[in-house]
Amino acid sequence: MMHLNLFLFGCGHHKGAWRHPNSSVEQLGDIRYYERLAQTAERGKLDAVFFADGQSAGNVSDGSPWFLEPLTAMAAMSRATDRIGLISTVSSTFYTPFHAARLVASLDHISGGRVGWNVVTSMFDVEARNHGYEAMPKHTDRYRRADEFVDAVLKLWDSWQADALTFDRQGHYADPDKVQPINHDGEFFLVDGPLNVPRPPQGHPVLFQAGASEQGRELAARRAEAIYAVAYDLPAAQDYYRDIKRRVQEAGRTTSVPIMPGLVTYVASTEDEARAKQRELDELLPVAASLRQLGQYTEQDCMNWELDEPVPGLPSLDAFNGPKGRYSTILRIIETEQPTVRQLLGRLAAGGGHCTMVGTPEQIADKMERWFRNEGADGFNLMPPSLPAGIEDFVDQVVPELQRRGLFRTEYRGTTLRDHLGLARPES
Amino acid sequence: MMHLNLFLFGCGHHKGAWRHPNSSVEQLGDIRYYERLAQTAERGKLDAVFFADGQSAGNVSDGSPWFLEPLTAMAAMSRATDRIGLISTVSSTFYTPFHAARLVASLDHISGGRVGWNVVTSMFDVEARNHGYEAMPKHTDRYRRADEFVDAVLKLWDSWQADALTFDRQGHYADPDKVQPINHDGEFFLVDGPLNVPRPPQGHPVLFQAGASEQGRELAARRAEAIYAVAYDLPAAQDYYRDIKRRVQEAGRTTSVPIMPGLVTYVASTEDEARAKQRELDELLPVAASLRQLGQYTEQDCMNWELDEPVPGLPSLDAFNGPKGRYSTILRIIETEQPTVRQLLGRLAAGGGHCTMVGTPEQIADKMERWFRNEGADGFNLMPPSLPAGIEDFVDQVVPELQRRGLFRTEYRGTTLRDHLGLARPES
Repeated sequence: MMHLNLFLFGCGHHKGAWRHPNSSVEQLGDIRYYERLAQTAERGKLDAVFFADGQSAGNVSDGSPWFLEPLTAMAAMSRATDRIGLISTVSSTFYTPFHAARLVASLDHISGGRVGWNVVTSMFDVEARNHGYEAMPKHTDRYRRADEFVDAVLKLWDSWQADALTFDRQGHYADPDKVQPINHDGEFFLVDGPLNVPRPPQGHPVLFQAGASEQGRELAARRAEAIYAVAYDLPAAQDYYRDIKRRVQEAGRTTSVPIMPGLVTYVASTEDEARAKQRELDELLPVAASLRQLGQYTEQDCMNWELDEPVPGLPSLDAFNGPKGRYSTILRIIETEQPTVRQLLGRLAAGGGHCTMVGTPEQIADKMERWFRNEGADGFNLMPPSLPAGIEDFVDQVVPELQRRGLFRTEYRGTTLRDHLGLARPES
Repeated sequence: MMHLNLFLFGCGHHKGAWRHPNSSVEQLGDIRYYERLAQTAERGKLDAVFFADGQSAGNVSDGSPWFLEPLTAMAAMSRATDRIGLISTVSSTFYTPFHAARLVASLDHISGGRVGWNVVTSMFDVEARNHGYEAMPKHTDRYRRADEFVDAVLKLWDSWQADALTFDRQGHYADPDKVQPINHDGEFFLVDGPLNVPRPPQGHPVLFQAGASEQGRELAARRAEAIYAVAYDLPAAQDYYRDIKRRVQEAGRTTSVPIMPGLVTYVASTEDEARAKQRELDELLPVAASLRQLGQYTEQDCMNWELDEPVPGLPSLDAFNGPKGRYSTILRIIETEQPTVRQLLGRLAAGGGHCTMVGTPEQIADKMERWFRNEGADGFNLMPPSLPAGIEDFVDQVVPELQRRGLFRTEYRGTTLRDHLGLARPES
C-alpha cells in the first residue's frame, strides 16, 4: 500500500495561492482552518498531515507560511480528528532535547499515539539569530548535533518503561525501578533525565527525516523511520530511493523505511481543466518580483523576458558560477517541459524541485503508480498548490482512483501513525 | 469583583489524593480529563485555569503532578472551552525567548485571546541538569535573566503591529513597515526578530508572576499584570498585598495588578462533613514516608510520634538551624491550628504554606470576603485538594454563594483573559 501525507503550508505550496480571490489567507490564524484540513485528509484516509517549520518571519510582504506554531496547532488538530497522524518539524539546533522529547511525547499522549517528529537542523542565519547564535553553526556541526540530539530524545522516551505506571494506591504511582535517569553527557548536551512524561503510546513517536546531503542521508539511514524526499522526476527519485535503501541496509537495519517524495498536483476531470487551474495560480504571481528572483537564480537580466514565450537559452550547468542546486532544477524544467517564462515562474513558485503532476485523476494515478511500482517512492508527501481546494480535489478525485487500483487503503486498520506506516512499536 | 483561577495539579493538591479509590489517577495522561476540568471551571465562570510546570520527573513513586506538557495540553483545552482563560507556566531559564514568545502567541491565536504566561525562573538542580546546566544558575542571575527574557518576549510580541496584516491580494500580505526586527542584543540573549507569529489577539498574553523573594517582588512589581501569591493567613496576605501594591506604584505603573493567593478549600454542607473530607484525604498519606519527611523539615525524630495526638513541642525558629521557610510554616500551623500529628501531615501535604479553608459554602465565602475586602487578596488561585471533586464542590457550592453576595461574576462580560481580569490591551 502507498503512504500519503498532506504537507500543510499556509494557503498552499504555490507562492501565488494566497493572492487568489477565494484564498484562505484570512483564516491562517484560525485554528479551525487547520482542523478542517486535517479532517479532509482524514476523510481521504491519508497517513498523516505534515507541518514544516521555520524560525524566522521571512518576507512578510509576499505571503508567509508561518502563522500558528506547529506543536500547539497539532494539539488542537488532534482533538478534531480520530485516526490521522500528525507530524511536526522540530529543529534540533534550537530546542533542548528535553523540551523536544517532552513536547512530542505529550502530543503523542494527547493524540493517542498519532505523532511523528520531522527532525531538521535548520539552515538560515536569520533563524540562528533569533535563538542566540551570531550565525548558523556549520553544516557538519549541525548534523553531529542532530545525531546526538536524536540519541538523547530516544533515551528520554525510553526512560519510562511501558509498564512503569502502576497506579497502586497502597504502593507506587510508578515503579521507581522502571523509571530511570539517562545520564546523557555528550559533546553538545547534558541531560540527566528521566523525562517528566511517561513513555509515549507509540513507544517512540515516528522519526521523519529529509536527508539530501551526504550527512543528511547518513543520518536518515541510521535514524529515520520514514523519509521525506525531493525528486524532480522518476530517475532522480530512483537514484535517491536506491541509495537510501542501500544505506539503511548497510546500517544493519531490517525495518522498512518508507520514502515519500514531495508531490505537487493539479487535478481536474480533463487535462485542459487541470492546466487551467495551474495557469490561474501562475497568473497570480507578481511579475516583476518573480522575474527579479529568477534573475538572481540564473544570474541573467530577466526583466524584459516575454512572459508567454519560451524561456531564452541559458548557460550550461558547468558554465554557471552561482549556487548550482536551484539552477540545475531550472535547467531540468526547461529541458523536460519546455515551459514559457510564466510557466517556469509558476513551477518554481510551487514546489520548486519537487515533482509536479498535472492532469486527470487517472493520469495522476498512473504516474504515482509508476513511481510506486518502480522503486521511486513508497508514497508521497502531497504539496497541494492551493489549500484547501488542492487537497479536496486530491481526496475526492485521486484517492478513489488509487483505492480502485488497490494502491491505497479504503479504511484505517490501526489507530496509531505507526500502524498506518506499518512500523513496529519499539520495545522499552 | 473577585478573580478566581483553578490551579491544575495532577489529581489535586493533596499529596495523598491520587491514592483515593475514586481518584482520577488513571486519567492523568488523558487530555479529556483536563478538558473536563476546564469545562467545570468555565461553568463556574472562573477567570482561568492555571498550569504549574516543572522540568524534572520528581519522585515518581509517590505520585507526580507532571504528565502532559502544559502548552500542548492547553491548546487542546482551548478547543473544548469558549471563554475561560488558560495560563501556563513557562520557565525563563530553559527556553529561548523566541520559542516562549512564539508558543504563547500561537496559543493566544488558537484560543482567541485567552492565554496567560506565568513567568518562573525554576529552582532545582535536577531541572537544570535536564537542560544542559551542571547546576541551577544562582538566584540573582536567574532573575536578571528572567528580566531580560520578559523584555525580549514583549518586544517580539510587539514586532508585529496590530494592523500589520493587510491580506491585500494585489499588494502586501503584511505591511513590511509594520513588521520590524527587534535587534535585541543583551547580556543573556541575542534575538533579531521579528517573531514569525503575528501580534497576539490580546496584544500581549497576560503576564503572571509569583514573586516571593526581594528580586521576585521587584520583577513582579515592574512586569507582572497579575500575581500568584503564597499567604498562610490574612495578616501575611496583607503584608504581601500592601508591599506589592506599593512597589507597583513606585515603579510608576498606574494599572491594577490583581493579587491572587493560593487557596485550599474543603467544602461541604456542614462543617463536620467538610472536616471529614479533609480527614479522608489525610488518612491516605503513607505514614512512614510522611513522618520521615516531617523529620527532615523539623530535624526531629518523628517516627514514633502518635498520629492522633497533638504535635510535640518544637524548638523556636531562632533555635532552628535548618531551612527556615518551611519550618516557620510548621510553627505557624501548630500555633494557630493546634493540629494532631496526622492533621499536620495533611496540612503540609495539601498546599503547604498556602491558606486552607474548611467549612460550609457560607463559612468559606465569609473568609474569602474578609480577605477580599481587607487588602488581603483581589482573588484566589484555587488549589483543590482533590480533582475533579474539589473544583466541582467549589463551583457548585461556593461560587453561587459568592455570586449571591455580588462578589463574583454571574456571566463572562468579555471574551479574553484580559477582559476577565479587567486589564487593558497593550497598544502596539
